[in-house]
Amino acid sequence: MKGVILRIQPRAELVDLVHELPPGDILAGALALASSFQFFPPGTVHLVVVDPGVGSSRAAIAVETKNYFFVGPDNGVLSLALGRDRVKSVRQLANPKLQLKKVSRTFHGRDIFAPAAAYLSTGVPLREFGDELPDYERIRFPWPTGGGGRYTGEIIYIDHFGNALTNLPVELDVFRNADGVKVWVGQRKQPFPLVNFYGAVGKGKPLGILGSAGLLEIAVNQGNAASQCGLKVGTRVIVA
Amino acid sequence: MKGVILRIQPRAELVDLVHELPPGDILAGALALASSFQFFPPGTVHLVVVDPGVGSSRAAIAVETKNYFFVGPDNGVLSLALGRDRVKSVRQLANPKLQLKKVSRTFHGRDIFAPAAAYLSTGVPLREFGDELPDYERIRFPWPTGGGGRYTGEIIYIDHFGNALTNLPVELDVFRNADGVKVWVGQRKQPFPLVNFYGAVGKGKPLGILGSAGLLEIAVNQGNAASQCGLKVGTRVIVA
Amino acid sequence: MKGVILRIQPRAELVDLVHELPPGDILAGALALASSFQFFPPGTVHLVVVDPGVGSSRAAIAVETKNYFFVGPDNGVLSLALGRDRVKSVRQLANPKLQLKKVSRTFHGRDIFAPAAAYLSTGVPLREFGDELPDYERIRFPWPTGGGGRYTGEIIYIDHFGNALTNLPVELDVFRNADGVKVWVGQRKQPFPLVNFYGAVGKGKPLGILGSAGLLEIAVNQGNAASQCGLKVGTRVIVA
Repeated sequence: MKGVILRIQPRAELVDLVHELPPGDILAGALALASSFQFFPPGTVHLVVVDPGVGSSRAAIAVETKNYFFVGPDNGVLSLALGRDRVKSVRQLANPKLQLKKVSRTFHGRDIFAPAAAYLSTGVPLREFGDELPDYERIRFPWPTGGGGRYTGEIIYIDHFGNALTNLPVELDVFRNADGVKVWVGQRKQPFPLVNFYGAVGKGKPLGILGSAGLLEIAVNQGNAASQCGLKVGTRVIVA
Repeated sequence: MKGVILRIQPRAELVDLVHELPPGDILAGALALASSFQFFPPGTVHLVVVDPGVGSSRAAIAVETKNYFFVGPDNGVLSLALGRDRVKSVRQLANPKLQLKKVSRTFHGRDIFAPAAAYLSTGVPLREFGDELPDYERIRFPWPTGGGGRYTGEIIYIDHFGNALTNLPVELDVFRNADGVKVWVGQRKQPFPLVNFYGAVGKGKPLGILGSAGLLEIAVNQGNAASQCGLKVGTRVIVA
Repeated sequence: MKGVILRIQPRAELVDLVHELPPGDILAGALALASSFQFFPPGTVHLVVVDPGVGSSRAAIAVETKNYFFVGPDNGVLSLALGRDRVKSVRQLANPKLQLKKVSRTFHGRDIFAPAAAYLSTGVPLREFGDELPDYERIRFPWPTGGGGRYTGEIIYIDHFGNALTNLPVELDVFRNADGVKVWVGQRKQPFPLVNFYGAVGKGKPLGILGSAGLLEIAVNQGNAASQCGLKVGTRVIVA
């Protein structure tokens, strides 16, 4: 993919966002993108290939938002980021002149997405790539329940540090005044404190924290929360 | 290695080809290079250090082909790529002026290959590096047997998605008309279909596919073929 | 972090030093930096974030040495490198104008260190960042004992090849004439030879070697020394 980009745009500055995503994990890709895209310079082209449905009927898209461009499969991997920047246009990638001459059915990252990202960076306008689409695919994401200061959510992702991401977003009213907020995880009777930094609890102690993805995370100070607390995707988390 | 290159050529655009090769796995390196070098811009210098024999008598070489330069140990890791581009010259890296002042016997990547790649990128001609060599080392690669529409090969590599690469190249006559081609793997009585994309079979179903390395691959749609089908390097594969 | 840097310094050449450090392993980070910083061009800004104490009272620092700049947490991760170049000035990173507007307590790499590295690369002088500090934190490092040609040390790190790093530095007199030096490891009666390259012993045989970190390493030719010889951090190593 990088070779393809550099053939089209020799002056591209290529930045790898993440090297450790589990293969085909759309949610992991969506979270990694959503927690970092906004730190890049305006105009950056974000190219994402977490694409388990390559060769199926899912569309290939390019999206222009207020500040950025996004290129990738329309399988939800872009959707958490797109929800945080104003979407101006969604286009299908359908122009064979802006793809490799020979497009395989197994590696659209190389054959379709990489050329699109490179041509966008050279200034080719979005409308050249294909038809406008009415919308993009949203990722399936379990929604927390509750209200009025008490919410029930669940763990949706465990990262390679063993930190557990929940589906409880920072925007919930319960987090507005974080003082004295408590976090119950799984079957445990004892709540974890909600803190502002890992070192606010002793080494090896569990905690809740509002992390860089904009979601409540369960962590252990200098430890691995998933293995230490027996956390899995789907483990219930209550915050009050 | 990157520091060494940037000292010699501050404007180098450095691209990492792959981060996950098993240490010392010459075949894995050769396959990764062979399936991607041709997508880079003409004139690219490909620097490869999979070098389990560092410090032994294997030569250090630079090769000029029709479109590219290659630098690395002469242990076969370059050979699959070199077989796909016309070789113009093979030279030994023997000029101490084009190496680090102090050459270790454990890290030629840093001390010999990286400076050579950097100097090549600045335009130093290949003849300055050392004597012309008559040939380069070929990788040991089991050869499929058979003919007339039926070939017996084996699995030679399993990648980090669990896809299994065979030694059966796309050039075999049996693949010319892929309709109805069947793939028998190991002791299984039931053949796998040869398809054009993963999603052509149901989720979790095995398949054969002609992959980006130019070889028949055994995969599972959205799954791990190696663990699911009990595949190992050496497992027999028949195509007919 | 890379996005933050590129916003401030769009022409930055970003080089990843290492991708495989165990999370929070200060010694691993210190060794990786100490064995490679000196190969980069003079003036390079080395940005290091191995930061298990983020949010605690550890300082954030920038250091100017004879040849380089270093930015990171003052937890010892910089200290092995700083011990190999002449330190000219150590400054605290305390100027909010040279940080992200909103500084989290969990990710100083992004919010404090990355902006500092970027501003240093644009020429902002070190004194702008904060007060001069009298010194920097040294890493806790067990010291070998002995003298007169016989030293007792221990294994301090095992890398991802399974090579075991000891705390025995190349500077010890016993290594001055390496001929006939022997290395005893753990409970083994049989010493390992000290050699100049892996291939000096047979495939699968153990050896001692003075490695790129400037320390005695225990390795196995084309093998994994840690698993094969039962090595752990803390295993005793005697050289004589």
